[in-house]
Amino acid sequence: MTQEDLLFRLATRDDLPSIVRLLADDDLGSQREQYEDPLPESYYSAFEQIHRDPNHELIVAERTGGVIGTLHLIFLPSVSFQGALRAQVESVRVDKRFQSRGIGSEMMKWTLERARQRGAQVVQLTTHKSRVDAHRFYERLGFQGSHLGMKFSLK
Amino acid sequence: MTQEDLLFRLATRDDLPSIVRLLADDDLGSQREQYEDPLPESYYSAFEQIHRDPNHELIVAERTGGVIGTLHLIFLPSVSFQGALRAQVESVRVDKRFQSRGIGSEMMKWTLERARQRGAQVVQLTTHKSRVDAHRFYERLGFQGSHLGMKFSLK
Repeated sequence: MTQEDLLFRLATRDDLPSIVRLLADDDLGSQREQYEDPLPESYYSAFEQIHRDPNHELIVAERTGGVIGTLHLIFLPSVSFQGALRAQVESVRVDKRFQSRGIGSEMMKWTLERARQRGAQVVQLTTHKSRVDAHRFYERLGFQGSHLGMKFSLK
Repeated sequence: MTQEDLLFRLATRDDLPSIVRLLADDDLGSQREQYEDPLPESYYSAFEQIHRDPNHELIVAERTGGVIGTLHLIFLPSVSFQGALRAQVESVRVDKRFQSRGIGSEMMKWTLERARQRGAQVVQLTTHKSRVDAHRFYERLGFQGSHLGMKFSLK
């Protein structure tokens, strides 16, 4: 499989089951997602908010036969760094059946290029401390693990 | 000084010099901000984008006499966690002349309450690994340092 086989596009509402399947098919994701038919309505209402906001791009990576990857790219205007635009990446997943074939790498290269096109000065993401393979993956691409990511649950 | 003295409100364009002064008055910030009169136009154009987006709240903490703190609160619709709304905090600063008086703590408590009001399920932030005091500060408030924050500079 070559990278030419991969198509990147904005997700539609019809892609949501594929996206949630990818989010759920993961050690951490399986504990927090609900992949069922029909999907819980909360996924659709979140999709609608994302879809109508031009600073959000929910992306699917597709090859003949279907969606094999997803990521959520967000553009954040910021006062700091002299008013720099930041790009933030969330919810990156590659179908387990297609891992270790460079697809994640192609997805992130696409993302960096897209962020550059839109004028972002930095691309930021957080990964769970337990995802050691992911840390290495992002470091190989040129990311620096300079920050501690902290969360406060309101649930 | 009691917490009753502190007023939290959305920043206006006229607050920008005070905000940039706070961002610049910091070991890391001094290297990347440009606090001068007039401010570089890039700060104003970023402010306009932030100001017109209802998912962004650029906040100042004020007491009689002026702005002594700032933070940027962003609400992020997300597909993951069953379509959860996330709140993200960026650019938190307290005037050095007023530090160690509980002002940062009041600012974060206000932020957690505001995030709860808007229906966020998690509040997330990153801090530079070198800001060890900040890590302890956020941990005392109940944040967990569960993630690695990674950045890729496009400049």
